[in-house]
Amino acid sequence: MDKRPIGVFDSGIGGLTVVKEILRVLPEERIIYLGDTARVPWGTRSKKIIALFSQQAASFLVEKRVKIVVVACHTASSVALPDLRKRLKTPLLGVIESSAKAAIEASKSKRIGIMGTSATIRSGAWEMALRKEDPKVKVFSIAAPLLVSLVEEGWFNHPSTAMILKEYLSPLLKKKIDALILACTHYPLLVSLIKKVSPDLVLVNPGRTTALALRQFLKKENLQGKIKQPLHCFYFTDFSLQTKRNLERFADRLKNVKIKEIDLEK
Amino acid sequence: MDKRPIGVFDSGIGGLTVVKEILRVLPEERIIYLGDTARVPWGTRSKKIIALFSQQAASFLVEKRVKIVVVACHTASSVALPDLRKRLKTPLLGVIESSAKAAIEASKSKRIGIMGTSATIRSGAWEMALRKEDPKVKVFSIAAPLLVSLVEEGWFNHPSTAMILKEYLSPLLKKKIDALILACTHYPLLVSLIKKVSPDLVLVNPGRTTALALRQFLKKENLQGKIKQPLHCFYFTDFSLQTKRNLERFADRLKNVKIKEIDLEK
Repeated sequence: MDKRPIGVFDSGIGGLTVVKEILRVLPEERIIYLGDTARVPWGTRSKKIIALFSQQAASFLVEKRVKIVVVACHTASSVALPDLRKRLKTPLLGVIESSAKAAIEASKSKRIGIMGTSATIRSGAWEMALRKEDPKVKVFSIAAPLLVSLVEEGWFNHPSTAMILKEYLSPLLKKKIDALILACTHYPLLVSLIKKVSPDLVLVNPGRTTALALRQFLKKENLQGKIKQPLHCFYFTDFSLQTKRNLERFADRLKNVKIKEIDLEK
Repeated sequence: MDKRPIGVFDSGIGGLTVVKEILRVLPEERIIYLGDTARVPWGTRSKKIIALFSQQAASFLVEKRVKIVVVACHTASSVALPDLRKRLKTPLLGVIESSAKAAIEASKSKRIGIMGTSATIRSGAWEMALRKEDPKVKVFSIAAPLLVSLVEEGWFNHPSTAMILKEYLSPLLKKKIDALILACTHYPLLVSLIKKVSPDLVLVNPGRTTALALRQFLKKENLQGKIKQPLHCFYFTDFSLQTKRNLERFADRLKNVKIKEIDLEK
């Protein structure tokens, strides 16, 4: 048993979709979440900056004495994980490694699509993880940077979101993928629209598989919290109006949460 | 005569639309530009964070011994200018103050629309500046946050950009505005699309009027550079692939430019 909290960081508010999945399977764990809302998004930035911001975020959580750091941000998981592993002693869990197997199992044709931020797609991290699991898998990927802004504005069902989504998905559908990895924390909020646009696709939410992998890890290492009614703490580097508004969208039904604002650059 | 450079800062790359206007009317001045591409966009953030980032950017330019700091970013001009004025001795020029008069002159009906980022619109800075110039003017404003991302992706003429633009403009057009202030540095790249969507609107580009005000100021204070073939320097906090790609879009036809990357947080 280990009552220390689980640390989760993300470039902004999107990682709360991962927190939700974690609390669904691990309701007796305490979460410390850090969202870098002062510098979001990370997915359009260089590898160097993503590595720097990730390191600052992970260090903040380590100082809070978390038992594990979950890198909820796909961009950081794709680009900064090896570097973080070298620097930190605390166990680390990204959203990719534990999800590749689930993605391959979800696909019958073994033709898998990946949709993510520019940095995530450019990194090739998903392709590598999928090919490691099954060298014969066919992987087709597309950077879909505009979807983050559309979700942040709450345009989940807007005709222009549907139009843009269709445009992004079109080259993947031409390649006859049968499963799509939602390789950005914002995309789970677009599931109903994606299903409308492309009803036959199996959608893989890495937040879900990461939560399951986390549960397995805590059990194996005997690190379960077993805390009744845990109190969570969410830190944000900017508690702007947009953060507040999106908190309602991303964290609805999350209870016992304390919100704090911090300066990560200090 | 004063050969010191003109400092210009912006949240990212958009401010280069202002630099272009400056160099059009002041070809014998040297520009030091700072784009905070590691933390762009600012328009969705809180006043506190915008003030902090603006202060860091302005201080960087002051250390480079500029003769004036031009705040090219509309968000910073709207939110952070009074605070900057208190802290800095170097002259400051925002994009609003010098443009209100031009906007009023551009409108026959004195019904003026403003389109900008969320922070710019929320600040009410444009309304205040316009009413100071003409208390009877009718002002109608709309936050159009998605346009920045669409421009950054280069979707200037995409059908979804047109659809989103129409949606943003619709409530302003219903109010029968006859002039529209492009209150974000990215919007000048959408001029041809806006003219297609609404051909009768007079478009006001504050970058242009700011450049004219700057020329007037330098002349009045006898601070003109009179430098033949000046060499400009553009600093970016992240020289990502997106920065590079957008540099071509925003800075085409700018010559004699040296590019450098810096860390503003240090």
